[in-house]
Amino acid sequence: MSIQSKFSKLGTQNAPGQEGRQSAAGTQDFLRGEKLDGIPVDFSHGDVDAHEPTPGAFEAFCAGVELGGAQAYTEYRGDLSIRDGVAAKLATFTGAEVDANDGLIITPGTQGALFLAVAATMMRGDKVAIVQPDYFANRKLVEFFEGEIVPVQLRYRDAAQGQAGLDLTELEAAFQAGARLFLFSNPNNPSGVVYSADEVADIAALARRYGATVIVDQLYSRLLYQGVSYTHLRAMDIDPENVVTIMGPSKTESLSGYRLGVAFGSREIIGRMEKLQAIVSLRAAGYSQAVLRTWFNEPDGWMADRIAQHQAIRDDLITLFRGIDGCFVRTPDAGSYLFPQLPDLTIAPADFVKALRMLGGVTVTPGTEFSPHTANSIRLNFSQDHAAAVAAVERLSTLLDRYRA
Amino acid sequence: MSIQSKFSKLGTQNAPGQEGRQSAAGTQDFLRGEKLDGIPVDFSHGDVDAHEPTPGAFEAFCAGVELGGAQAYTEYRGDLSIRDGVAAKLATFTGAEVDANDGLIITPGTQGALFLAVAATMMRGDKVAIVQPDYFANRKLVEFFEGEIVPVQLRYRDAAQGQAGLDLTELEAAFQAGARLFLFSNPNNPSGVVYSADEVADIAALARRYGATVIVDQLYSRLLYQGVSYTHLRAMDIDPENVVTIMGPSKTESLSGYRLGVAFGSREIIGRMEKLQAIVSLRAAGYSQAVLRTWFNEPDGWMADRIAQHQAIRDDLITLFRGIDGCFVRTPDAGSYLFPQLPDLTIAPADFVKALRMLGGVTVTPGTEFSPHTANSIRLNFSQDHAAAVAAVERLSTLLDRYRA
Repeated sequence: MSIQSKFSKLGTQNAPGQEGRQSAAGTQDFLRGEKLDGIPVDFSHGDVDAHEPTPGAFEAFCAGVELGGAQAYTEYRGDLSIRDGVAAKLATFTGAEVDANDGLIITPGTQGALFLAVAATMMRGDKVAIVQPDYFANRKLVEFFEGEIVPVQLRYRDAAQGQAGLDLTELEAAFQAGARLFLFSNPNNPSGVVYSADEVADIAALARRYGATVIVDQLYSRLLYQGVSYTHLRAMDIDPENVVTIMGPSKTESLSGYRLGVAFGSREIIGRMEKLQAIVSLRAAGYSQAVLRTWFNEPDGWMADRIAQHQAIRDDLITLFRGIDGCFVRTPDAGSYLFPQLPDLTIAPADFVKALRMLGGVTVTPGTEFSPHTANSIRLNFSQDHAAAVAAVERLSTLLDRYRA
Repeated sequence: MSIQSKFSKLGTQNAPGQEGRQSAAGTQDFLRGEKLDGIPVDFSHGDVDAHEPTPGAFEAFCAGVELGGAQAYTEYRGDLSIRDGVAAKLATFTGAEVDANDGLIITPGTQGALFLAVAATMMRGDKVAIVQPDYFANRKLVEFFEGEIVPVQLRYRDAAQGQAGLDLTELEAAFQAGARLFLFSNPNNPSGVVYSADEVADIAALARRYGATVIVDQLYSRLLYQGVSYTHLRAMDIDPENVVTIMGPSKTESLSGYRLGVAFGSREIIGRMEKLQAIVSLRAAGYSQAVLRTWFNEPDGWMADRIAQHQAIRDDLITLFRGIDGCFVRTPDAGSYLFPQLPDLTIAPADFVKALRMLGGVTVTPGTEFSPHTANSIRLNFSQDHAAAVAAVERLSTLLDRYRA
């Protein structure tokens, strides 16, 4: 394999946030009708101007700068006193002990944590069970490290409310075929479904039976909508050395600009992750680490308000999508992603995504990023200005009519 | 190979900044005499309290936070307007064009740039020419990606002043043996020598002849002492697509706490680096990127003052080391590293490094991190409080006498 072909699998052309690098060449072949007026909305990521960073985050950063060298140069796994505070909060949140000294690492974003966790748990040629659909980097990470992906379907369309719809038979078959690593997001990105207590218990039981390691990305596990309960895998009956949990304050808390994530759990894997972080990025930005002092420490009522605002946007957008003929969307249990399936169109879904951006000022992420089976779905991060998001989905509806098959 | 053995090569036990994680077990076997009083000095990295961040850096960060979402979510390769500004400054500084759109990427620190550059230019099994001694991550990166290191000696002890002492015959032999990647730091970390114009021209000529790619880490190329001239490889007669230059404001400018680096040059390699960054860390922290607006834009006289302060510390420490019987040290041309070779001792150098820290409050980095041939050398980052650094080297001298063979 040449390095060119290795990197060709890591395409970022359709990745969220990279749309500005796309060429407009060829789009005249399928652009139809006039541009639609309205405030442009970039659903490829959340709008941290509409939903501002946690109160106190900036002040915590400034205090870190004030502290100087001690905050700029931390251990590679992050400052110990900050790890102490975060570990205690995460133990309470997840319902299982977190070892601040050896069982937690602070990383540059949850992406940094995911990269290190995968690199520290698989070798070239290893089989890795990956959910379809799931966060696009999961697949790319396994490909980059030359592993073999064993897909496990998430039948979120057909699952009962309260179930994510993981095909547990396929997961067991993956383990039987030799996979010893399972990587998944809960809540699922892109569909927003939360795995039920039974599903999480079944994953734990299978991991136990086959001695498999599980990496679970719980980035959105704090933003749960009314009536939804959440089960933490690490609190189940499972060898704690076989679980790595990944979280971070970038999404719900709108702290993306500081690039912070954490991975916690298995001491051995966290130890390897730190060794690798030493040559990947040394550490999460020292001053930024100080912002973690505000995490799980938000003002009273702040999180409830944030959830209520997102639930209101979710509900309005769901109503709009349900009014579009031929469109399917499941109501997300958590997080800020919608993953509607579009009706049949006269152009390729990838071209519709471009037309939507060029004619409607609406940026979404194509479904192919998440699974080969969801090409006719799109992902929207609805952590946006409420009115602008509603208007943008109305423009999307208008444009669907222009291209409807 | 098991994942355990793969990661065992990535030891961080003796890495700078990780000393706090070492156990004291066994040290009673070699600790000799009383502790020495004095302000502890950690020479494993620079002291950003003694040499403060560039004026305006914090304000630029705050302006980035103020800008909000547009600064938090940039292209993976970094914000275009910031890349524009930095590219122009780097073109002037290095004497060759920099393409802001396609030929520059902003990374989480220069470590991030190094990781991506190596990952984007070598495949498993590839031979890679690595200088001995050189920055320890260079070797570890090649090992992590399962390449084969072809060492090239830097005979800095024997080279004339004005020459770094690279063994060009060995470099050519490495290329003849099939290496198509050469990775080196200039100024050299740890020795502080700068490659002469002739040496850089010879490297360019060899790279041309063998079609090799060169990654040059120029992290310290702004901190040049009186009378030293610096030659930029990328401005020589060499295919610009075969050169990646790495710099960053973390050292001379004391901006380490923001974690910023850049790589620039080859459009194809930078493109691959961005694809990889998308799954490694997404981007350098968005708000931090704004700090790059102050880079190469420091107040008049600020850089001259910073250099003068470091030259004064350098000269005092050099005088002290030259007064120690059996110690060799070359005067660094640039940067803030000293790499003295210690006299023969009655204990292993690694144990002396521990004794120095425990008895003298002086932290240094063992020479084994940089080359298998420099076990009896130590690296000191002398970007410290001047008086504290002088006193620390005096304690080091006292402790050498306790352990002298």
